[in-house]
Amino acid sequence: MISVVLIGFGTIGKHLFTAFSDAKNANVVQVYNRTKSALSSIKSSVAATTNLSDLAKADVYIIATTDDAITTVSKQLTLKNKLIVHTSGSVGINQLANTNRKGSFYPLQTFSPDKKIDFKSVPICIEAENKTDFNLLHQLAKEISDNVQKISSEQRKALHLSAVFVNNFTNHLLYIGNEICKENNVPFSILSPLIKETINKLDSLQPFDAQTGPAKRGDTKTLERHLEQLQQETFKKIYSTISTSITDTYGKKL
Amino acid sequence: MISVVLIGFGTIGKHLFTAFSDAKNANVVQVYNRTKSALSSIKSSVAATTNLSDLAKADVYIIATTDDAITTVSKQLTLKNKLIVHTSGSVGINQLANTNRKGSFYPLQTFSPDKKIDFKSVPICIEAENKTDFNLLHQLAKEISDNVQKISSEQRKALHLSAVFVNNFTNHLLYIGNEICKENNVPFSILSPLIKETINKLDSLQPFDAQTGPAKRGDTKTLERHLEQLQQETFKKIYSTISTSITDTYGKKL
Repeated sequence: MISVVLIGFGTIGKHLFTAFSDAKNANVVQVYNRTKSALSSIKSSVAATTNLSDLAKADVYIIATTDDAITTVSKQLTLKNKLIVHTSGSVGINQLANTNRKGSFYPLQTFSPDKKIDFKSVPICIEAENKTDFNLLHQLAKEISDNVQKISSEQRKALHLSAVFVNNFTNHLLYIGNEICKENNVPFSILSPLIKETINKLDSLQPFDAQTGPAKRGDTKTLERHLEQLQQETFKKIYSTISTSITDTYGKKL
Repeated sequence: MISVVLIGFGTIGKHLFTAFSDAKNANVVQVYNRTKSALSSIKSSVAATTNLSDLAKADVYIIATTDDAITTVSKQLTLKNKLIVHTSGSVGINQLANTNRKGSFYPLQTFSPDKKIDFKSVPICIEAENKTDFNLLHQLAKEISDNVQKISSEQRKALHLSAVFVNNFTNHLLYIGNEICKENNVPFSILSPLIKETINKLDSLQPFDAQTGPAKRGDTKTLERHLEQLQQETFKKIYSTISTSITDTYGKKL
Protein backbone atom coordinates (compact mmCIF):
# COMPACT_ATOMS: atom_id res chain seq x y z
CA MET A 1 0.00 0.00 0.00
CA ILE A 2 1.47 3.34 -1.07
CA SER A 3 0.62 6.15 1.34
CA VAL A 4 0.09 9.65 0.04
CA VAL A 5 -0.18 13.09 1.63
CA LEU A 6 -1.96 15.62 -0.57
CA ILE A 7 -0.69 19.18 -0.13
CA GLY A 8 -3.27 21.57 -1.57
CA PHE A 9 -6.96 20.83 -1.96
CA GLY A 10 -8.00 22.94 -4.93
CA THR A 11 -9.47 21.60 -8.18
CA ILE A 12 -6.60 19.19 -8.99
CA GLY A 13 -6.16 18.14 -5.36
CA LYS A 14 -9.83 17.24 -5.15
CA HIS A 15 -9.81 15.33 -8.43
CA LEU A 16 -6.71 13.37 -7.29
CA PHE A 17 -8.32 12.69 -3.92
CA THR A 18 -11.38 11.21 -5.66
CA ALA A 19 -9.19 9.13 -7.99
CA PHE A 20 -7.09 7.72 -5.12
CA SER A 21 -10.19 6.86 -3.11
CA ASP A 22 -10.93 4.19 -5.76
CA ALA A 23 -7.33 2.88 -5.81
CA LYS A 24 -6.62 -0.60 -4.44
CA ASN A 25 -3.01 -0.18 -3.43
CA ALA A 26 -2.74 3.51 -2.67
CA ASN A 27 -4.22 5.54 0.12
CA VAL A 28 -4.41 9.24 0.92
CA VAL A 29 -3.50 9.38 4.64
CA GLN A 30 -3.72 13.15 5.05
CA VAL A 31 -4.79 16.28 3.20
CA TYR A 32 -3.26 19.69 3.86
CA ASN A 33 -4.84 22.96 2.79
CA ARG A 34 -3.99 26.55 3.70
CA THR A 35 -7.59 27.33 4.57
CA LYS A 36 -9.84 25.13 6.66
CA SER A 37 -13.07 25.69 4.73
CA ALA A 38 -11.84 23.81 1.64
CA LEU A 39 -11.23 20.73 3.79
CA SER A 40 -14.80 20.47 5.08
CA SER A 41 -15.82 17.98 2.36
CA ILE A 42 -13.27 15.40 3.53
CA LYS A 43 -14.76 12.51 5.45
CA SER A 44 -13.54 12.00 9.00
CA SER A 45 -11.58 8.84 8.21
CA VAL A 46 -8.93 10.95 6.44
CA ALA A 47 -6.79 13.34 8.47
CA ALA A 48 -6.94 16.97 7.41
CA THR A 49 -4.64 19.77 8.49
CA THR A 50 -3.94 23.44 7.88
CA ASN A 51 -0.50 23.16 9.47
CA LEU A 52 2.41 22.38 7.11
CA SER A 53 4.63 21.35 10.05
CA ASP A 54 2.15 18.70 11.02
CA LEU A 55 2.29 16.39 7.99
CA ALA A 56 1.83 12.66 8.49
CA LYS A 57 4.39 10.03 7.48
CA ALA A 58 3.86 8.91 3.88
CA ASP A 59 5.62 7.36 0.89
CA VAL A 60 4.77 10.25 -1.45
CA TYR A 61 3.88 13.91 -0.81
CA ILE A 62 2.00 15.51 -3.69
CA ILE A 63 2.04 19.31 -3.89
CA ALA A 64 -1.10 20.32 -5.79
CA THR A 65 -0.99 24.05 -5.14
CA THR A 66 -0.84 26.88 -7.71
CA ASP A 67 2.40 26.96 -9.73
CA ASP A 68 3.61 30.08 -7.95
CA ALA A 69 3.30 28.50 -4.50
CA ILE A 70 5.18 25.26 -5.25
CA THR A 71 8.71 26.49 -4.37
CA THR A 72 7.58 28.34 -1.24
CA VAL A 73 5.52 25.43 0.05
CA SER A 74 8.33 22.93 -0.61
CA LYS A 75 10.72 25.13 1.40
CA GLN A 76 8.31 25.33 4.32
CA LEU A 77 8.13 21.57 4.72
CA THR A 78 9.86 20.30 7.85
CA LEU A 79 10.35 16.87 6.25
CA LYS A 80 13.78 15.50 5.31
CA ASN A 81 14.70 13.16 2.46
CA LYS A 82 11.09 12.35 1.60
CA LEU A 83 9.73 12.01 -1.94
CA ILE A 84 8.02 15.32 -2.79
CA VAL A 85 6.36 15.70 -6.19
CA HIS A 86 4.29 18.48 -7.73
CA THR A 87 1.43 18.36 -10.26
CA SER A 88 2.39 21.33 -12.43
CA GLY A 89 3.01 21.20 -16.17
CA SER A 90 5.19 24.27 -16.32
CA VAL A 91 7.39 24.00 -13.21
CA GLY A 92 10.66 22.00 -13.31
CA ILE A 93 11.41 19.57 -10.48
CA ASN A 94 14.53 21.61 -9.67
CA GLN A 95 12.22 24.32 -8.35
CA LEU A 96 11.41 22.07 -5.40
CA ALA A 97 13.51 22.59 -2.24
CA ASN A 98 16.73 20.52 -1.91
CA THR A 99 15.82 19.15 1.53
CA ASN A 100 13.79 16.32 -0.02
CA ARG A 101 13.83 13.99 -3.05
CA LYS A 102 12.15 15.60 -6.05
CA GLY A 103 9.69 14.42 -8.64
CA SER A 104 6.67 15.33 -10.70
CA PHE A 105 3.23 13.78 -11.00
CA TYR A 106 1.46 15.76 -13.74
CA PRO A 107 -2.02 14.67 -14.80
CA LEU A 108 -2.34 16.08 -18.33
CA GLN A 109 -6.01 16.99 -18.39
CA THR A 110 -8.33 19.97 -18.05
CA PHE A 111 -10.01 19.93 -14.66
CA SER A 112 -13.14 21.87 -13.81
CA PRO A 113 -14.53 21.75 -10.26
CA ASP A 114 -17.91 20.26 -11.17
CA LYS A 115 -16.96 18.02 -14.09
CA LYS A 116 -16.18 14.38 -13.30
CA ILE A 117 -13.12 12.88 -15.00
CA ASP A 118 -12.45 9.27 -15.87
CA PHE A 119 -8.91 9.20 -14.50
CA LYS A 120 -8.11 5.84 -16.15
CA SER A 121 -7.56 7.61 -19.48
CA VAL A 122 -5.74 10.67 -18.12
CA PRO A 123 -2.04 10.59 -19.05
CA ILE A 124 0.05 10.95 -15.89
CA CYS A 125 3.50 12.31 -16.69
CA ILE A 126 6.01 11.29 -14.07
CA GLU A 127 9.61 12.20 -13.35
CA ALA A 128 11.99 11.42 -10.50
CA GLU A 129 15.69 11.81 -9.65
CA ASN A 130 16.41 8.10 -9.25
CA LYS A 131 15.07 4.78 -10.40
CA THR A 132 13.58 3.71 -7.05
CA ASP A 133 11.53 6.90 -6.76
CA PHE A 134 10.54 6.65 -10.42
CA ASN A 135 9.30 3.09 -9.94
CA LEU A 136 7.30 4.12 -6.88
CA LEU A 137 5.67 6.99 -8.79
CA HIS A 138 4.99 4.66 -11.70
CA GLN A 139 3.27 2.19 -9.40
CA LEU A 140 1.28 5.00 -7.78
CA ALA A 141 0.22 6.50 -11.12
CA LYS A 142 -0.81 3.05 -12.40
CA GLU A 143 -3.24 2.83 -9.47
CA ILE A 144 -5.35 5.60 -10.95
CA SER A 145 -4.49 5.67 -14.68
CA ASP A 146 -3.82 3.28 -17.55
CA ASN A 147 -1.72 5.93 -19.29
CA VAL A 148 1.53 6.61 -17.42
CA GLN A 149 4.33 8.45 -19.24
CA LYS A 150 8.00 9.07 -18.40
CA ILE A 151 8.45 12.77 -19.15
CA SER A 152 11.40 15.04 -18.32
CA SER A 153 10.94 18.58 -16.99
CA GLU A 154 11.83 20.00 -20.41
CA GLN A 155 9.37 17.72 -22.21
CA ARG A 156 6.70 18.51 -19.66
CA LYS A 157 7.07 22.24 -20.29
CA ALA A 158 6.59 21.61 -24.02
CA LEU A 159 3.52 19.45 -23.33
CA HIS A 160 2.08 22.15 -21.10
CA LEU A 161 2.61 24.83 -23.74
CA SER A 162 1.08 22.57 -26.38
CA ALA A 163 -1.84 21.89 -24.02
CA VAL A 164 -2.52 25.63 -23.77
CA PHE A 165 -2.96 25.76 -27.54
CA VAL A 166 -5.02 22.58 -27.96
CA ASN A 167 -7.16 23.02 -24.86
CA ASN A 168 -7.25 26.57 -23.40
CA PHE A 169 -7.13 28.35 -26.75
CA THR A 170 -9.43 25.87 -28.49
CA ASN A 171 -11.97 26.37 -25.72
CA HIS A 172 -11.78 30.12 -26.24
CA LEU A 173 -12.43 29.66 -29.97
CA LEU A 174 -15.47 27.56 -29.06
CA TYR A 175 -16.56 30.41 -26.78
CA ILE A 176 -16.24 32.88 -29.67
CA GLY A 177 -18.15 30.51 -31.98
CA ASN A 178 -20.89 30.33 -29.36
CA GLU A 179 -21.01 34.14 -29.05
CA ILE A 180 -21.36 34.54 -32.84
CA CYS A 181 -24.27 32.08 -32.84
CA LYS A 182 -25.95 33.83 -29.91
CA GLU A 183 -25.66 37.24 -31.61
CA ASN A 184 -27.32 35.80 -34.73
CA ASN A 185 -29.99 33.62 -33.12
CA VAL A 186 -28.63 30.31 -34.35
CA PRO A 187 -28.36 27.39 -31.92
CA PHE A 188 -24.67 26.59 -31.27
CA SER A 189 -25.64 22.89 -31.10
CA ILE A 190 -25.88 22.81 -34.93
CA LEU A 191 -22.07 23.06 -34.91
CA SER A 192 -21.66 20.09 -32.59
CA PRO A 193 -21.10 17.42 -35.33
CA LEU A 194 -18.53 19.73 -36.98
CA ILE A 195 -16.67 20.24 -33.70
CA LYS A 196 -16.62 16.49 -33.04
CA GLU A 197 -15.40 15.74 -36.58
CA THR A 198 -12.63 18.35 -36.18
CA ILE A 199 -11.20 16.15 -33.44
CA ASN A 200 -12.15 12.73 -34.84
CA LYS A 201 -10.35 13.56 -38.10
CA LEU A 202 -7.08 13.41 -36.18
CA ASP A 203 -7.43 9.66 -35.77
CA SER A 204 -6.67 9.31 -39.48
CA LEU A 205 -5.13 12.64 -40.57
CA GLN A 206 -2.31 14.88 -39.31
CA PRO A 207 -3.57 18.39 -38.36
CA PHE A 208 -1.49 19.78 -41.24
CA ASP A 209 -3.43 17.62 -43.72
CA ALA A 210 -6.82 18.14 -42.07
CA GLN A 211 -6.84 21.92 -42.58
CA THR A 212 -9.70 23.33 -44.66
CA GLY A 213 -11.39 26.72 -45.01
CA PRO A 214 -10.98 30.14 -46.63
CA ALA A 215 -7.53 30.95 -45.18
CA LYS A 216 -6.10 27.62 -46.39
CA ARG A 217 -7.60 28.25 -49.87
CA GLY A 218 -6.32 31.84 -49.92
CA ASP A 219 -9.94 32.95 -50.42
CA THR A 220 -9.44 36.67 -49.61
CA LYS A 221 -13.03 37.66 -50.47
CA THR A 222 -14.46 35.40 -47.76
CA LEU A 223 -11.79 36.54 -45.29
CA GLU A 224 -12.75 40.18 -45.89
CA ARG A 225 -16.46 39.41 -45.57
CA HIS A 226 -15.87 37.60 -42.29
CA LEU A 227 -13.84 40.49 -40.86
CA GLU A 228 -16.69 42.86 -41.76
CA GLN A 229 -19.21 40.54 -40.07
CA LEU A 230 -17.29 40.40 -36.78
CA GLN A 231 -18.40 43.04 -34.26
CA GLN A 232 -15.74 42.78 -31.55
CA GLU A 233 -12.24 44.12 -32.15
CA THR A 234 -10.56 41.27 -30.22
CA PHE A 235 -12.41 38.68 -32.34
CA LYS A 236 -11.32 40.49 -35.52
CA LYS A 237 -7.72 40.44 -34.29
CA ILE A 238 -7.85 36.71 -33.52
CA TYR A 239 -9.45 36.09 -36.92
CA SER A 240 -6.71 37.88 -38.86
CA THR A 241 -3.81 36.61 -36.73
CA ILE A 242 -4.77 32.94 -37.14
CA SER A 243 -5.75 33.37 -40.82
CA THR A 244 -2.35 34.90 -41.57
CA SER A 245 -0.64 32.02 -39.78
CA ILE A 246 -2.68 29.49 -41.82
CA THR A 247 -1.92 31.16 -45.15
CA ASP A 248 1.77 31.38 -44.17
CA THR A 249 1.76 27.68 -43.26
CA TYR A 250 0.34 26.69 -46.64
CA GLY A 251 2.51 29.14 -48.59
CA LYS A 252 -0.26 31.42 -49.78
CA LYS A 253 0.58 35.06 -49.16
CA LEU A 254 -2.50 37.27 -48.72
CA MET B 1 -37.94 9.79 -56.54
CA ILE B 2 -36.22 13.21 -56.42
CA SER B 3 -33.80 13.68 -59.31
CA VAL B 4 -30.65 15.72 -58.80
CA VAL B 5 -28.04 17.24 -61.10
CA LEU B 6 -24.73 17.94 -59.35
CA ILE B 7 -22.89 20.96 -60.72
CA GLY B 8 -19.26 20.77 -59.62
CA PHE B 9 -17.42 17.62 -58.65
CA GLY B 10 -14.81 18.80 -56.15
CA THR B 11 -14.56 17.61 -52.54
CA ILE B 12 -18.14 18.52 -51.51
CA GLY B 13 -19.60 17.39 -54.84
CA LYS B 14 -17.97 13.98 -54.43
CA HIS B 15 -19.09 13.60 -50.81
CA LEU B 16 -22.68 14.51 -51.82
CA PHE B 17 -22.54 12.08 -54.74
CA THR B 18 -21.51 9.26 -52.38
CA ALA B 19 -24.24 10.22 -49.90
CA PHE B 20 -26.97 10.28 -52.59
CA SER B 21 -25.85 6.94 -53.99
CA ASP B 22 -27.13 5.36 -50.74
CA ALA B 23 -30.43 7.30 -50.78
CA LYS B 24 -33.68 5.42 -51.38
CA ASN B 25 -35.79 8.20 -52.85
CA ALA B 26 -33.22 10.47 -54.47
CA ASN B 27 -31.04 9.93 -57.46
CA VAL B 28 -28.17 11.84 -59.07
CA VAL B 29 -29.05 11.76 -62.79
CA GLN B 30 -26.09 13.80 -64.02
CA VAL B 31 -22.82 15.32 -62.85
CA TYR B 32 -21.29 18.40 -64.44
CA ASN B 33 -17.68 19.44 -63.97
CA ARG B 34 -15.59 22.07 -65.75
CA THR B 35 -12.77 19.60 -66.41
CA LYS B 36 -13.25 16.07 -67.68
CA SER B 37 -10.53 14.39 -65.60
CA ALA B 38 -12.41 14.89 -62.31
CA LEU B 39 -15.39 12.99 -63.76
CA SER B 40 -13.44 9.81 -64.53
CA SER B 41 -14.38 8.17 -61.22
CA ILE B 42 -18.11 8.26 -62.05
CA LYS B 43 -19.56 4.94 -63.06
CA SER B 44 -21.10 4.74 -66.51
CA SER B 45 -24.69 4.49 -65.23
CA VAL B 46 -24.59 8.19 -64.29
CA ALA B 47 -24.33 10.78 -67.07
CA ALA B 48 -21.35 13.12 -66.85
CA THR B 49 -20.83 16.32 -68.79
CA THR B 50 -18.43 19.24 -69.09
CA ASN B 51 -21.03 21.33 -70.94
CA LEU B 52 -23.21 23.63 -68.79
CA SER B 53 -25.75 23.99 -71.65
CA ASP B 54 -26.24 20.27 -71.70
CA LEU B 55 -27.79 19.68 -68.27
CA ALA B 56 -30.39 16.93 -67.85
CA LYS B 57 -33.90 17.51 -66.56
CA ALA B 58 -34.05 17.27 -62.78
CA ASP B 59 -36.01 18.36 -59.71
CA VAL B 60 -33.03 20.00 -58.02
CA TYR B 61 -29.75 21.39 -59.37
CA ILE B 62 -27.02 21.60 -56.73
CA ILE B 63 -24.13 23.98 -57.42
CA ALA B 64 -21.14 22.64 -55.46
CA THR B 65 -18.45 24.86 -56.96
CA THR B 66 -16.13 27.27 -55.14
CA ASP B 67 -17.91 30.26 -53.57
CA ASP B 68 -16.50 32.66 -56.15
CA ALA B 69 -17.88 30.68 -59.08
CA ILE B 70 -21.47 30.32 -57.83
CA THR B 71 -22.90 33.53 -59.33
CA THR B 72 -21.09 33.09 -62.66
CA VAL B 73 -22.13 29.45 -63.01
CA SER B 74 -25.76 30.23 -62.10
CA LYS B 75 -25.82 32.93 -64.80
CA GLN B 76 -24.45 30.54 -67.41
CA LEU B 77 -27.23 28.02 -66.91
CA THR B 78 -29.65 27.83 -69.85
CA LEU B 79 -32.39 26.47 -67.58
CA LYS B 80 -35.53 28.47 -66.76
CA ASN B 81 -37.60 28.43 -63.55
CA LYS B 82 -35.81 25.37 -62.13
CA LEU B 83 -34.82 24.96 -58.48
CA ILE B 84 -31.12 25.85 -58.21
CA VAL B 85 -29.38 25.60 -54.84
CA HIS B 86 -25.79 26.06 -53.76
CA THR B 87 -23.78 24.40 -50.98
CA SER B 88 -21.92 27.44 -49.68
CA GLY B 89 -21.99 28.69 -46.11
CA SER B 90 -21.03 32.25 -46.89
CA VAL B 91 -23.00 33.05 -50.08
CA GLY B 92 -26.58 34.36 -49.89
CA ILE B 93 -29.21 32.78 -52.14
CA ASN B 94 -29.76 36.23 -53.72
CA GLN B 95 -26.36 35.81 -55.38
CA LEU B 96 -27.88 33.14 -57.62
CA ALA B 97 -29.16 34.34 -61.03
CA ASN B 98 -32.81 35.45 -61.21
CA THR B 99 -33.66 33.13 -64.13
CA ASN B 100 -34.35 30.23 -61.76
CA ARG B 101 -35.82 29.53 -58.31
CA LYS B 102 -33.20 29.90 -55.59
CA GLY B 103 -32.23 27.92 -52.55
CA SER B 104 -29.38 26.65 -50.42
CA PHE B 105 -28.34 23.16 -49.40
CA TYR B 106 -25.42 23.66 -47.02
CA PRO B 107 -23.88 20.59 -45.36
CA LEU B 108 -22.23 22.03 -42.25
CA GLN B 109 -19.18 19.80 -41.99
CA THR B 110 -15.45 19.76 -42.75
CA PHE B 111 -14.78 17.68 -45.84
CA SER B 112 -11.39 16.28 -46.78
CA PRO B 113 -10.98 14.34 -50.03
CA ASP B 114 -9.86 11.07 -48.44
CA LYS B 115 -11.85 11.11 -45.21
CA LYS B 116 -15.22 9.31 -45.22
CA ILE B 117 -18.11 11.12 -43.56
CA ASP B 118 -21.20 9.64 -41.95
CA PHE B 119 -23.68 11.97 -43.63
CA LYS B 120 -26.56 10.90 -41.36
CA SER B 121 -25.21 13.17 -38.60
CA VAL B 122 -24.19 16.10 -40.83
CA PRO B 123 -26.52 19.08 -40.31
CA ILE B 124 -27.93 20.14 -43.67
CA CYS B 125 -29.01 23.77 -43.60
CA ILE B 126 -31.68 24.47 -46.18
CA GLU B 127 -33.37 27.60 -47.47
CA ALA B 128 -35.80 28.28 -50.33
CA GLU B 129 -37.95 31.13 -51.64
CA ASN B 130 -41.28 29.35 -51.25
CA LYS B 131 -42.84 26.55 -49.24
CA THR B 132 -43.05 24.00 -52.08
CA ASP B 133 -39.34 24.32 -52.85
CA PHE B 134 -38.50 24.27 -49.15
CA ASN B 135 -40.47 21.06 -48.66
CA LEU B 136 -38.73 19.45 -51.63
CA LEU B 137 -35.30 20.39 -50.26
CA HIS B 138 -36.33 19.13 -46.85
CA GLN B 139 -37.36 15.79 -48.32
CA LEU B 140 -34.11 15.60 -50.30
CA ALA B 141 -31.93 16.49 -47.31
CA LYS B 142 -33.77 13.90 -45.17
CA GLU B 143 -32.70 11.25 -47.69
CA ILE B 144 -29.07 11.66 -46.64
CA SER B 145 -29.18 13.22 -43.16
CA ASP B 146 -31.11 12.93 -39.89
CA ASN B 147 -30.26 16.53 -39.05
CA VAL B 148 -32.01 19.00 -41.38
CA GLN B 149 -32.21 22.66 -40.33
CA LYS B 150 -34.17 25.62 -41.70
CA ILE B 151 -31.58 28.39 -41.87
CA SER B 152 -31.82 31.82 -43.52
CA SER B 153 -28.97 33.31 -45.58
CA GLU B 154 -28.09 35.65 -42.68
CA GLN B 155 -28.06 32.83 -40.15
CA ARG B 156 -26.02 30.68 -42.52
CA LYS B 157 -23.36 33.37 -42.79
CA ALA B 158 -23.13 33.49 -39.00
CA LEU B 159 -22.88 29.69 -38.82
CA HIS B 160 -20.13 29.71 -41.44
CA LEU B 161 -18.16 32.36 -39.57
CA SER B 162 -18.61 30.43 -36.33
CA ALA B 163 -17.50 27.25 -38.13
CA VAL B 164 -14.26 28.95 -39.17
CA PHE B 165 -13.47 29.57 -35.49
CA VAL B 166 -14.51 26.18 -34.13
CA ASN B 167 -13.14 24.10 -37.00
CA ASN B 168 -10.55 25.86 -39.21
CA PHE B 169 -8.90 27.81 -36.40
CA THR B 170 -9.13 24.96 -33.90
CA ASN B 171 -7.44 22.68 -36.41
CA HIS B 172 -4.63 25.23 -36.80
CA LEU B 173 -4.17 25.33 -33.01
CA LEU B 174 -3.91 21.53 -33.08
CA TYR B 175 -1.29 21.90 -35.83
CA ILE B 176 0.70 24.31 -33.64
CA GLY B 177 0.36 21.97 -30.65
CA ASN B 178 1.71 19.16 -32.83
CA GLU B 179 4.64 21.32 -34.00
CA ILE B 180 5.59 22.17 -30.40
CA CYS B 181 5.58 18.46 -29.53
CA LYS B 182 7.68 17.57 -32.58
CA GLU B 183 10.27 20.24 -31.75
CA ASN B 184 10.60 18.84 -28.23
CA ASN B 185 10.46 15.11 -28.98
CA VAL B 186 7.20 14.42 -27.18
CA PRO B 187 4.54 12.29 -28.87
CA PHE B 188 1.49 14.46 -29.71
CA SER B 189 -0.70 11.44 -28.93
CA ILE B 190 -0.19 12.09 -25.19
CA LEU B 191 -2.45 15.13 -25.67
CA SER B 192 -5.23 13.11 -27.26
CA PRO B 193 -7.31 12.55 -24.07
CA LEU B 194 -7.02 16.27 -23.28
CA ILE B 195 -8.19 17.24 -26.77
CA LYS B 196 -11.15 14.85 -26.54
CA GLU B 197 -12.11 16.14 -23.08
CA THR B 198 -11.94 19.74 -24.37
CA ILE B 199 -14.84 18.84 -26.67
CA ASN B 200 -16.68 16.37 -24.41
CA LYS B 201 -16.84 18.99 -21.66
CA LEU B 202 -19.26 20.94 -23.83
CA ASP B 203 -21.93 18.29 -23.34
CA SER B 204 -22.27 19.53 -19.75
CA LEU B 205 -20.63 22.97 -19.65
CA GLN B 206 -20.85 26.18 -21.67
CA PRO B 207 -17.49 27.14 -23.27
CA PHE B 208 -17.45 30.23 -21.03
CA ASP B 209 -17.58 28.03 -17.92
CA ALA B 210 -15.19 25.37 -19.26
CA GLN B 211 -12.25 27.78 -19.64
CA THR B 212 -9.10 26.93 -17.65
CA GLY B 213 -5.41 27.80 -17.93
CA PRO B 214 -2.90 30.56 -17.17
CA ALA B 215 -4.66 33.34 -19.15
CA LYS B 216 -7.96 32.69 -17.34
CA ARG B 217 -6.13 32.73 -13.98
CA GLY B 218 -4.24 35.90 -14.91
CA ASP B 219 -1.01 33.94 -14.29
CA THR B 220 1.39 36.40 -15.97
CA LYS B 221 4.55 34.48 -14.99
CA THR B 222 3.46 31.39 -16.93
CA LEU B 223 2.33 33.53 -19.88
CA GLU B 224 5.78 35.15 -20.02
CA ARG B 225 7.56 31.80 -19.76
CA HIS B 226 5.43 30.38 -22.57
CA LEU B 227 6.16 33.35 -24.84
CA GLU B 228 9.89 32.84 -24.21
CA GLN B 229 9.55 29.13 -25.03
CA LEU B 230 7.87 29.73 -28.39
CA GLN B 231 10.28 29.91 -31.32
CA GLN B 232 8.09 31.15 -34.16
CA GLU B 233 6.92 34.76 -34.26
CA THR B 234 3.48 33.86 -35.66
CA PHE B 235 2.92 31.37 -32.82
CA LYS B 236 3.95 34.03 -30.27
CA LYS B 237 1.48 36.45 -31.85
CA ILE B 238 -1.35 33.91 -31.71
CA TYR B 239 -0.43 33.11 -28.10
CA SER B 240 -0.62 36.72 -26.94
CA THR B 241 -3.68 37.66 -29.03
CA ILE B 242 -5.79 34.79 -27.68
CA SER B 243 -4.43 35.15 -24.12
CA THR B 244 -5.37 38.85 -24.11
CA SER B 245 -8.85 37.97 -25.37
CA ILE B 246 -9.24 35.37 -22.60
CA THR B 247 -8.10 37.72 -19.83
CA ASP B 248 -10.40 40.44 -21.22
CA THR B 249 -13.29 37.97 -21.26
CA TYR B 250 -12.77 37.07 -17.60
CA GLY B 251 -12.08 40.64 -16.54
CA LYS B 252 -8.43 40.22 -15.61
CA LYS B 253 -6.27 42.93 -17.14
CA LEU B 254 -2.68 41.80 -17.75
